[in-house]
Amino acid sequence: MENLNFFTNRRTIRSYSDREVTTETIQELMEAAVRTSTTGNMQLYSVVVSRDKEVKEALAPLHFNQPVVRNAPAILTFCADFNRFTAWCKQRNATPGYANFQGFFTAAIDALIAAQTFCVAAEARGLGICYIGTTTYNTKGITKVLNLPKLVVPVTTITLGYPENQPEQADRLPIEAIIHQEKYTDYTSDDIDRYYFNKESLETSRQFITDNNKETLAQVFTDVRYSKEMFEKFSTEFMEAIREQGFEF
Amino acid sequence: MENLNFFTNRRTIRSYSDREVTTETIQELMEAAVRTSTTGNMQLYSVVVSRDKEVKEALAPLHFNQPVVRNAPAILTFCADFNRFTAWCKQRNATPGYANFQGFFTAAIDALIAAQTFCVAAEARGLGICYIGTTTYNTKGITKVLNLPKLVVPVTTITLGYPENQPEQADRLPIEAIIHQEKYTDYTSDDIDRYYFNKESLETSRQFITDNNKETLAQVFTDVRYSKEMFEKFSTEFMEAIREQGFEF
Repeated sequence: MENLNFFTNRRTIRSYSDREVTTETIQELMEAAVRTSTTGNMQLYSVVVSRDKEVKEALAPLHFNQPVVRNAPAILTFCADFNRFTAWCKQRNATPGYANFQGFFTAAIDALIAAQTFCVAAEARGLGICYIGTTTYNTKGITKVLNLPKLVVPVTTITLGYPENQPEQADRLPIEAIIHQEKYTDYTSDDIDRYYFNKESLETSRQFITDNNKETLAQVFTDVRYSKEMFEKFSTEFMEAIREQGFEF
Repeated sequence: MENLNFFTNRRTIRSYSDREVTTETIQELMEAAVRTSTTGNMQLYSVVVSRDKEVKEALAPLHFNQPVVRNAPAILTFCADFNRFTAWCKQRNATPGYANFQGFFTAAIDALIAAQTFCVAAEARGLGICYIGTTTYNTKGITKVLNLPKLVVPVTTITLGYPENQPEQADRLPIEAIIHQEKYTDYTSDDIDRYYFNKESLETSRQFITDNNKETLAQVFTDVRYSKEMFEKFSTEFMEAIREQGFEF
């Protein structure tokens, strides 16, 4: 582990072999993930492991039928969970006060960083993962399918399985685009040109522009993949879902 | 890495040796962290690395002067960042629509999972980390100290350094308390008793109760460490901070 090649060589895996992911494997990976830091050692998260065909079929349309969701041997929904801790407080003559925005976000942090440790551990064991961003779009539907009680909100989903193949590695911005020394230095127009140059030069990016009949790669994002209309619609629905789960804000 | 002992043996490190954390080390660790999954490969996060005594002194009171913040060789503030991507869109004749709740939360996911990969990579290289939860309490102050522009919100902070010693490992709930098979099964009163039994039996927990003059460990959380008043106050302030940074909701 001294060598960081394990990290720098990673790829997201969207195609899985037929090899099953056993209960024991998931148990072992969670034994690794629970060691992740957690706010005040409250462990404010749960994970729902769905492997039954029926449950996966119910989840798939809520993730816009992305093939990776249908094909993955296991779907893990990581949830911000203040339900378990609140139940403990009530049972111990204590008055919990976590049904608010800070409660939701604190539990979301716990869930997300535990999810990521789970992913790194899975990759260390030769499995592959893909994050599914649609969890914060169709949150109400997912909540219903998984029977989530009040104070539990799904915040991300991971598909898990053994890699079918080794895909190409995706591009990334140069590190200096991400790190700021001491304080944040805002980007100049030249910085933006320089940092996005590699991404914009890729053959896949140019293909993306042509396929979508756009002028720039950025327009593929704003007009096709992640539009203002879509983000506004899913802002409203995600907030509604969080509030319906009992977090008032 | 096949063996997961690296993960299951981890400890949070709150005391650091005098050994400096170099710019090169942070660069290497970020080279590992940028390989983390990111929404649509947009990389919606930035990290501000603070090592100067002056900046650390400005940050310390905003983290309630926790000793770990004052003593750490490096403080890393991970930020949800839609500023860089939005600047790119505007410069490329595209109309970004991310100044909303979904935009904030999507960028927060990217920031948090990248932060956690950074932590695992740091531990793989023999460094130690501690998460600082106060980032979502005094968000406005941190935003000001770090000169964060609109569409950038700090979501978590990590202290980083070489371990001074090997502390005891913290307790965790049994794995079955965290994992739900197929769908969520809500906790019975017996489940809660069983899952919290070990935590409540610890000598440190009993000491906590005595020191705080409480009846139960849960009361130490609700009355002393994470009170309703505190969570409500910091809910309001965190939402204000997010909105002031330009995410409307």
